[in-house]
Amino acid sequence: MEITPKFTDFTELETRYRANLINSLSGFKSACLVGSVNTKGVYNLAIFNSVFHIGANPPLMGIVFRPDNGQRHTLENIRKTEYFTINHIHESIIVQAHQTSAKYGEDLSEFDETGLTPDIGTLHPAPYVEESVIRIGLKLNDELPVIANGTIILIAEIVELFLPTECLDPDGTLNLSMAGTVAISGLDGYFRTEKICRLSYARPGKFSEVIG
Amino acid sequence: MEITPKFTDFTELETRYRANLINSLSGFKSACLVGSVNTKGVYNLAIFNSVFHIGANPPLMGIVFRPDNGQRHTLENIRKTEYFTINHIHESIIVQAHQTSAKYGEDLSEFDETGLTPDIGTLHPAPYVEESVIRIGLKLNDELPVIANGTIILIAEIVELFLPTECLDPDGTLNLSMAGTVAISGLDGYFRTEKICRLSYARPGKFSEVIG
Repeated sequence: MEITPKFTDFTELETRYRANLINSLSGFKSACLVGSVNTKGVYNLAIFNSVFHIGANPPLMGIVFRPDNGQRHTLENIRKTEYFTINHIHESIIVQAHQTSAKYGEDLSEFDETGLTPDIGTLHPAPYVEESVIRIGLKLNDELPVIANGTIILIAEIVELFLPTECLDPDGTLNLSMAGTVAISGLDGYFRTEKICRLSYARPGKFSEVIG
Repeated sequence: MEITPKFTDFTELETRYRANLINSLSGFKSACLVGSVNTKGVYNLAIFNSVFHIGANPPLMGIVFRPDNGQRHTLENIRKTEYFTINHIHESIIVQAHQTSAKYGEDLSEFDETGLTPDIGTLHPAPYVEESVIRIGLKLNDELPVIANGTIILIAEIVELFLPTECLDPDGTLNLSMAGTVAISGLDGYFRTEKICRLSYARPGKFSEVIG
């Protein structure tokens, strides 16, 4: 492929073009549905491609909230109730998951509007998605403001986890391809995946080997 | 698949098992090589699975630095020189890319040790990876500490971009499958991807349509 020095001045780009391009540059992203509940008891569900790993001990995840979302029900709900869920998206629920990004009023539940099913546990009040095969319950830990653009990064601790045992390798690694979890690129592109390999822990002097 | 309520107390898990499991939960992650240079002029290259999108205007990316990496050459280099590069990883350079995670001394360049080729531009001193087809130059913008575990999130602004024009959709979206960019799951799992579809902007009352 010919590699072209394409851009250095991004302010020249049309707004939507720039959004599509820059959203593609961070590579493949996780595809998750975030479940929360408001103080009236309405279950909110929203698709996010900005969930990321922070650390394993304590088990922490991060999630980016964009400043340009005027409604931001999910962020408000998490601030008020402290709990939320992250539910992996697989291929057969992509259309319903994507539909949660439509701007519904705060009295409407995206569960009702998309046909996905809320599943409430005993540990906290936030709804899981019954159709998801990997479901994670989290408690708010911290809020980090990104000064440069008004974005907010939430840090949360994992408090509960549901998963299909058959997708778990003996060493604790989850086989996400087997679970059917999809990846997102850009704003609206959904991808299935196929495992190439796992590679052994790298040490100087010798290339790693395929371990699975 | 049977979904099992697998864990609520993560402190009971063996350290490595917990690391593998929790690293899998955030879903698919980007596979990137981060290039930097130290004050002696040695080119550093390190694989990261923690690059994420922050915003398009200004064009910002985030990257998570783990507290448990005693050497952290990349972070020190970025703090001192302000610039670094993010280079997408495709299938044919996975083994070399993974090898950059071995602990080399600060006077050794991972470029020399793995056989990848540094490519220096005119705008800043940080090395690109010549083998990568998508290469991004960035300038440090901010540093956010995660109190809960000592992790550091760097915020950086994109200042330069090289890409293969044939992978660019007319609306600015990059086709990462076509570019060969791989995804990572967990600590050491590499995945190829296949596009399922792009879906149209979601509006209430009607499910989105496939647009590509």
